[in-house]
Amino acid sequence: MAKYVYFFGDGKAEGNKEMRNLLGGKGCNIAEMTNIGIPVPAGFTISTEACVYFFENGGKHPRGLEEEVENNLRKLEKVMGRRFGDKKNPLLVSVRSGARVSMPGMMDTVLNLGLNDETIEGIAEQMGDERPAYDSYRRLVHMFGDVVMGLKPEKEEQDPFVEILDNLKKERNVEYDVDLKAEDLKELVEQYKQLIKDRLGEEFPQDPRKQLWLAIDSVFKSWNTPRAIAYRELEGIPDDWGTAVNVQSMVFGNLGNDSGTGVMFTRDPATGENKMYGEYLINAQGEDVVAGIRTPKAIDELKSDMPDIYDQLNKIRLKLEKHYKEMQDVEFTIEKGKLWILQTRAGKRTGLASIKIAVDMVEEGLISKEDAILRLDPIQLNQLLRPIFDSDQKAQAVREGKVVAKGLNAGPGAASGQVVFFAEDATDWAKDGKQVILVRLETSPDDIRGMSASQGVLTSRGGMTSHAALVARQMGKVCIVGCGDLIIDYQKRQIEVNNTVIKEGDWISIDGSTGEVILGKLETRPSEVLQVLLDKTMKPEESEAYRLYSNVMTWADEFRRLGVRTNADEPEQSWNALQFGAEGIGLCRTEHMFFEGDRILSVQKMIIAETDEERREAIFELLPMQREDFIGIFRVMEGRPVTIRTLDPPLHEFLPHNREEIDELAKKINVSAEKIEDRVQALSEANPMLGHRGCRLGITYPEITEMQARAIFEAACTVKKEGIDVHPEVMIPLVGHVKELELQAEVVNRVAKDVFKEQGIDVQYLVGTMIEIPRAAITADEVAKVAEFFSFGTNDLTQTCLGVSRDDAGRFLPLYVNLRIYDRDPFSTIDFDGVGKLVDMGTKLGRKTRPDLKVGICGEHGGDPESVKFCHRVGLDYVSCSPFRVPIARLAAAQESILEKRSKK
Amino acid sequence: MAKYVYFFGDGKAEGNKEMRNLLGGKGCNIAEMTNIGIPVPAGFTISTEACVYFFENGGKHPRGLEEEVENNLRKLEKVMGRRFGDKKNPLLVSVRSGARVSMPGMMDTVLNLGLNDETIEGIAEQMGDERPAYDSYRRLVHMFGDVVMGLKPEKEEQDPFVEILDNLKKERNVEYDVDLKAEDLKELVEQYKQLIKDRLGEEFPQDPRKQLWLAIDSVFKSWNTPRAIAYRELEGIPDDWGTAVNVQSMVFGNLGNDSGTGVMFTRDPATGENKMYGEYLINAQGEDVVAGIRTPKAIDELKSDMPDIYDQLNKIRLKLEKHYKEMQDVEFTIEKGKLWILQTRAGKRTGLASIKIAVDMVEEGLISKEDAILRLDPIQLNQLLRPIFDSDQKAQAVREGKVVAKGLNAGPGAASGQVVFFAEDATDWAKDGKQVILVRLETSPDDIRGMSASQGVLTSRGGMTSHAALVARQMGKVCIVGCGDLIIDYQKRQIEVNNTVIKEGDWISIDGSTGEVILGKLETRPSEVLQVLLDKTMKPEESEAYRLYSNVMTWADEFRRLGVRTNADEPEQSWNALQFGAEGIGLCRTEHMFFEGDRILSVQKMIIAETDEERREAIFELLPMQREDFIGIFRVMEGRPVTIRTLDPPLHEFLPHNREEIDELAKKINVSAEKIEDRVQALSEANPMLGHRGCRLGITYPEITEMQARAIFEAACTVKKEGIDVHPEVMIPLVGHVKELELQAEVVNRVAKDVFKEQGIDVQYLVGTMIEIPRAAITADEVAKVAEFFSFGTNDLTQTCLGVSRDDAGRFLPLYVNLRIYDRDPFSTIDFDGVGKLVDMGTKLGRKTRPDLKVGICGEHGGDPESVKFCHRVGLDYVSCSPFRVPIARLAAAQESILEKRSKK
Repeated sequence: MAKYVYFFGDGKAEGNKEMRNLLGGKGCNIAEMTNIGIPVPAGFTISTEACVYFFENGGKHPRGLEEEVENNLRKLEKVMGRRFGDKKNPLLVSVRSGARVSMPGMMDTVLNLGLNDETIEGIAEQMGDERPAYDSYRRLVHMFGDVVMGLKPEKEEQDPFVEILDNLKKERNVEYDVDLKAEDLKELVEQYKQLIKDRLGEEFPQDPRKQLWLAIDSVFKSWNTPRAIAYRELEGIPDDWGTAVNVQSMVFGNLGNDSGTGVMFTRDPATGENKMYGEYLINAQGEDVVAGIRTPKAIDELKSDMPDIYDQLNKIRLKLEKHYKEMQDVEFTIEKGKLWILQTRAGKRTGLASIKIAVDMVEEGLISKEDAILRLDPIQLNQLLRPIFDSDQKAQAVREGKVVAKGLNAGPGAASGQVVFFAEDATDWAKDGKQVILVRLETSPDDIRGMSASQGVLTSRGGMTSHAALVARQMGKVCIVGCGDLIIDYQKRQIEVNNTVIKEGDWISIDGSTGEVILGKLETRPSEVLQVLLDKTMKPEESEAYRLYSNVMTWADEFRRLGVRTNADEPEQSWNALQFGAEGIGLCRTEHMFFEGDRILSVQKMIIAETDEERREAIFELLPMQREDFIGIFRVMEGRPVTIRTLDPPLHEFLPHNREEIDELAKKINVSAEKIEDRVQALSEANPMLGHRGCRLGITYPEITEMQARAIFEAACTVKKEGIDVHPEVMIPLVGHVKELELQAEVVNRVAKDVFKEQGIDVQYLVGTMIEIPRAAITADEVAKVAEFFSFGTNDLTQTCLGVSRDDAGRFLPLYVNLRIYDRDPFSTIDFDGVGKLVDMGTKLGRKTRPDLKVGICGEHGGDPESVKFCHRVGLDYVSCSPFRVPIARLAAAQESILEKRSKK
Repeated sequence: MAKYVYFFGDGKAEGNKEMRNLLGGKGCNIAEMTNIGIPVPAGFTISTEACVYFFENGGKHPRGLEEEVENNLRKLEKVMGRRFGDKKNPLLVSVRSGARVSMPGMMDTVLNLGLNDETIEGIAEQMGDERPAYDSYRRLVHMFGDVVMGLKPEKEEQDPFVEILDNLKKERNVEYDVDLKAEDLKELVEQYKQLIKDRLGEEFPQDPRKQLWLAIDSVFKSWNTPRAIAYRELEGIPDDWGTAVNVQSMVFGNLGNDSGTGVMFTRDPATGENKMYGEYLINAQGEDVVAGIRTPKAIDELKSDMPDIYDQLNKIRLKLEKHYKEMQDVEFTIEKGKLWILQTRAGKRTGLASIKIAVDMVEEGLISKEDAILRLDPIQLNQLLRPIFDSDQKAQAVREGKVVAKGLNAGPGAASGQVVFFAEDATDWAKDGKQVILVRLETSPDDIRGMSASQGVLTSRGGMTSHAALVARQMGKVCIVGCGDLIIDYQKRQIEVNNTVIKEGDWISIDGSTGEVILGKLETRPSEVLQVLLDKTMKPEESEAYRLYSNVMTWADEFRRLGVRTNADEPEQSWNALQFGAEGIGLCRTEHMFFEGDRILSVQKMIIAETDEERREAIFELLPMQREDFIGIFRVMEGRPVTIRTLDPPLHEFLPHNREEIDELAKKINVSAEKIEDRVQALSEANPMLGHRGCRLGITYPEITEMQARAIFEAACTVKKEGIDVHPEVMIPLVGHVKELELQAEVVNRVAKDVFKEQGIDVQYLVGTMIEIPRAAITADEVAKVAEFFSFGTNDLTQTCLGVSRDDAGRFLPLYVNLRIYDRDPFSTIDFDGVGKLVDMGTKLGRKTRPDLKVGICGEHGGDPESVKFCHRVGLDYVSCSPFRVPIARLAAAQESILEKRSKK
């Protein structure tokens, strides 16, 4: 006959920690602890299979279950030396749910079962006090009436149990529950029983066995309450798992000063330090902590309060860690000087603690490097990299109510500075040695220099992938976007936010890790890792954070297969990325270079030009400057591949859009304002995202591609002559049809040939394309006839594949994520089923034509751990992401490699 | 040994018309005519295989070719009774190219070969006149020097042959070539020969055999001239076909009044009438017609000029038609009273003629119905449907230079009316009984009523699929778009075009079939077919055009498998479409209904609403009106399926955009102008095409879908109660993820259930989706779990798959088509390799999930013949197009069915 009930107690359990599916998380860990000699109140677990049977058979118990429970109850009575329902020496039990994965607060718990009008006397005697006995009884009647018998408040009514309690307290003129005397609690029990009878027409059951079975069934049923179903749907937990039921003898921490209750972590969950951490209350029950009338003590004090117990607890701590090889979160109760462990599970922790614990456990020999890597959340690495506020100052600011708004945490880290509203001001003020925060409704490519000069960027509009967010992350700038509470007034040069006015020049501090906007100046400092890696102001051996970082990265690189490159447009960014372990540049956007200094003027002249010759002349003014850009980058990258994208954005992005700017430009380039205005008008587009941009520019104006190719190859030759290897990869954007690539590749190859002849030197290079248009992905076999590499531009590919404009998605995409139409923002994590299918299809088709095709991904997804893992799975060669995301990508890539290796075993 | 040369002459030929690949078009038809007893000057054809060998072997002739040519030349001399190179009785020949398909003007021809300083005397004697002999000689030297010997003008030089000729004419003080005397021509020959010697250092070859072989090789080589290669690339003709060479004895039409030359069509190429058509010149050569100094005579006059020849020609006409079963275009020459046929080929004809000929030939028993169907270009049906100008008036207007501009022929037909610039004026003027042409920079949904009230629409911007073009085609309105020469000034209410000013109220006429804009009023009348079908002002039996139309349509329906539905939003359109044979409505756009009359106010109130309740109230104001719309349509459609798309366009399209309109609206709906302006601002989008529209509206505001569903089902119940069957199909637009459809389908199904319960009647209906986002196509297996039908929205699918905004493509797409990046405008004909692949994939995936899934296509491509054929090939169930395109789609569908059937045989 099937076995449904598993006993634990007296140092032996029928279950163990591998039986999570059968016994649930709580049940399997209780069994495990019992087996390894940890003092756990005895009891038994009814398996999830019984629950599944219960639902599959219309609420009937499987044959033999009742007999099994009865047998186990008898065993329990024997172990505990008490009898369930016995007047003199009664056994009390708790009944708790426990599913395979934790569903906090979703399912039912009933405590103190076995209490009735008769056993109450025996309990009072056991406890040596009537008050805790009646307190337990009134809690049972309340919980049982509510949870098991279903006495819920009517619509808009207060909970009637609570109402009765409140009335009694008023009558007795006391404030807290604990001030009620035994007599009062006795009366409360009577009133509760009456309430149940009045409302439900049934009596509160006095028969302990009836209590027990009703409670067990109630826990089963709680698996299928609407809120539990909704939770499972949200978390993707299958409905047919069912829950286990744990029946455990009660222990009480409220029986005097030799009793107590508490929570213990096996390491510090904030810092990860390897020491006991937690808090406890003497003479108290778990619920009393929640009631908030007494402040728990730090666990260290237990050493003097109860040195013996502290010692036992520490031994248990070490035992559990060694056994579970994981930091544990433990509930304990001390009953009259005896320590009981009620529950253990993996403990939640901060990112920093997470990393430290994983690294330390490897060094302590507890876990393997692979396990350490798998335990980390790659995003948590940010906590090692970002500048940080002085933690005391930040806490004080929070207390003083200086946090005035909260936006989206687009660029993690901490920054403070004086508010400016215009990019030029940011540049000017920074030149004068000031720290500034650039505050804008939203940013545009015009603002790039100002952003670069600022400590941080704050916008009231835009989402996690807005221009500001994207550029800030690439620059490693602190950034908050979409902070809708800010009313920004450019004219008055001020921000109004919840009745506070912040003027230009006022100091603010922004926490890009949390999205908080804080009045005043908080001190910040770069993270230790950056002080070691970039600033070189700290030696590696001086920094604990660096030790952690460097261990994790070294191990990650041991395991990962996927390459990691960076998106960088200038030498300094490129150098930073190298320090973070980038193996090349996957996306160098040339248009950012078009905005620097006076270059924009040449670009504008080119756009205004009326003849091919004028245009050619203007565009070639940029040649020496672009060449210098590339020389700088090639030198830094020392032979690593550098993927350079030819001009991509629509031309109107380079033109001024308001009257004053137009007039100014007209004066500068000596052309009538009308002409400029006409051109601006003519270039305006209904859907610029789908307009005249990308290779469409290079095809209509081949001279642009020609100039850029010349700059690339002249720079490559120059640097190669210096003895430094170079590997440029020219990337043509927005290709939809192979013929577009063909035409542009012709230009690039022709220029390369010319330049190599002029310079008397050859440079190896590739010509490839971004796959960012669905058509390119579905015709990738054709495209690969010309392309020597692919780089998936998943930002634009997401926009076109989903038909969603990133700039406009704010009005429905958040709702879409709420409604679970998309599980995650598809601009943050690749939409695997849609866009991902195109990536997969494009890769396969491309390699069918050209088996050695190099395939990567650039764009924001390249720095998102889930997307990086996806890229590994579909067999890409590399991902490319902003410099500060490189470590994250390395870690994520390693995790997927390890998983892949394990799944093959 | 291989055979390379095929003789024809003396009533027998070695080739025939099936040998087109080997002998070329000209060669095989000459052979065929010879075989059926038509008098063709004898000669021989050197096969394309010889040409292919020539190129594959570096310009060498295949073994035996020279001997074969020599043998055939001897045979030819025998048949003609003349000898090649003989002084007394010389044979002259022409050498012409003739490829498998016609490449007009691309390759070389040399006439009069065999003439030299000695044979000239014999020819003069044969001709009985020195002048035509020397005229032939100077033409030979010129042609041979240019074409065979390669004497081309230097850069910027005039053709030196022509220069010599012009100088001689000046010297002789004559105007035309024909005025030169025999003596002059003799001198010309000498000067030409000298020119060749001076320039090339070689003599013009006197040896006829040398002339012949040089000419043959020259024809071979002309296959690979840059212009021929470019032409082949453009037309997709393989490079390895090669050309045949036709060597044919010369005949002369310029030997007196018993000689002549002409062109004959076996039917009237303009009207299709079954009678001889053509023109001729007495005592002339083909080139003289080109010289333009004499006006040819109509072929009818030949009856009196040369009754015998006329009779022979007519017999040949009948023989050729019976033999070729196709209208022929024939070149003939009469030499001293003897008729020679030089060439025959299928004749070009107008659309009308095309249809008439096909239909007549079926009735004459010449061809089968299938053949007739296959011969038609579906677009030509337009000529039977569109209103037409009085042809005399139009011709006069052209002569008088009244055609002032030319735009894109977006809506075929002819219209004239008074110019108005605003939609309201169009409506008002039309109410006063005026005919108006609405002239706009471009149209918007606001203009729909005005467009409907106009005779035609003319815009200066936009392409073939712009709003104006799309709506006009759907309405069957005459329309010209993208007429860039018009400078439209709304303030001054005038158009300036090439120095002409057209003011409001001036009459213009527009020819939507040609794109011509004509000053003044030309008379128009509806086509006969419309008079029969729609206006009922003509009886079927009275109209020849209707007879043709109705035959073609009846036959087409016999063969086609693909269903044809229509895009229609109102009862009248729907009724029209039914007359054209539509089998249902494939796309009923509900938003068009939102603009009518005061409805727009309710829509605007809904958009401005701040609470869900306000919004709900406003949207439900539209319910009775939408219900009436659907009642009207359901009644007309009498049980045929009606696919209704829920609201699609972004909401800002419904709001006013300038100050005055905002103020007006503010007053009307009693809301502050600021609030409206804020809303307009808030709703503005960077890329509206990819923004908050389609089902995204229905998901954020489910009450919109609810109202629309209610209107549909209440209407359906009402009409069903009248005893008329109804089959609504509710179509959710812009679905990218199956969950979007799921959410919207839930709303629709819930409302349906409610309404059916309220009304006490059930209606069969389907819920499906438009596939217009790449993600929907590539996840169609998922989407089909919910969708009961698919309709590919290839307009938007093209935009997203190609990443091209239709509104903005004007700046690069024309260049793309020129550069052959795309062979055709992908918005006119489906891009088979890209968008088509998505359609195919979506269909297959969808049917994998739901084998009986109904799949169609709506949008402009549904009326494009090539796209219709594609839809047949990928197995769609139906196409849907604008009413006036329905006959075109029926015909195209039939053609593809027939081709499929034949390919299976």
